[in-house]
Amino acid sequence: MTAPLKTEHGINFSIAHAGAWQDLAQHVFRHAAMGDVRGKLFLKEPLQLTGMEISLGTIPAGRGTPFTHRHRENEEVYIFVKGRGQFQVDDKILEVREGTVVRVACAGVRAWRNNSSEPLHYIVIQAKSGTLANGTITDGAVVSEKVSWSD
Amino acid sequence: MTAPLKTEHGINFSIAHAGAWQDLAQHVFRHAAMGDVRGKLFLKEPLQLTGMEISLGTIPAGRGTPFTHRHRENEEVYIFVKGRGQFQVDDKILEVREGTVVRVACAGVRAWRNNSSEPLHYIVIQAKSGTLANGTITDGAVVSEKVSWSD
Repeated sequence: MTAPLKTEHGINFSIAHAGAWQDLAQHVFRHAAMGDVRGKLFLKEPLQLTGMEISLGTIPAGRGTPFTHRHRENEEVYIFVKGRGQFQVDDKILEVREGTVVRVACAGVRAWRNNSSEPLHYIVIQAKSGTLANGTITDGAVVSEKVSWSD
Repeated sequence: MTAPLKTEHGINFSIAHAGAWQDLAQHVFRHAAMGDVRGKLFLKEPLQLTGMEISLGTIPAGRGTPFTHRHRENEEVYIFVKGRGQFQVDDKILEVREGTVVRVACAGVRAWRNNSSEPLHYIVIQAKSGTLANGTITDGAVVSEKVSWSD
């Protein structure tokens, strides 16, 4: 069983409530070849994303990805939210923990594991390599509409 | 003072250790117009990202963005990692908490606040609207290279 994801949509937004990290295993990704992956929630479809794919993930203590993979055209970023583990890119082993962020280029051969005694919670983001023109605050524009909760 | 960000770069990766969420206020974003923004760490430059901008953020209890903004060409996603707050898109007020993810289209007028008594930790991702071709596992390719820690 996979838990239903609560979503709501408006003209300029979508919102989903995935629940607390400790309960993320309720979400199961049905993988055509590998079967059910417990604790993996992809958000592109439920949030109607057009520029990125995002997944929330959790790995129990002592578990990891049993295979390596690379990408065709998407840059990937892994944000480790809580716990500790290891991340492999090509021949390099990186130690990861709360607050660690890893970028992997398409060609990077990657795998990761939770070699600790606590759950490892993380986020993966995919976006097409080389597509971002403006970052930080250069794409944003402050507008005159008031914040709802201001006087 | 803003804390130095520990980074390391390889042929196919970059890694940064931002530290625990509770210590995120050590990172200060220097905003040309608004001055220093404590607890905001942009990662595009330190991680050499090409398809997305990512920032880690923390807001103390009772604080929020004093202005609204929209975007020119980037879709934005807000992932709330810990705590509780409110998110405004146009005339809609959304309740957000650990595990809430909000997509905002360019035209959406947005602001957010921490109206709780605990810190609110979150991640913001920008990617150019409409650029993603493949999501979930359709851009990835399992390869034959072994996982380093397998037998």
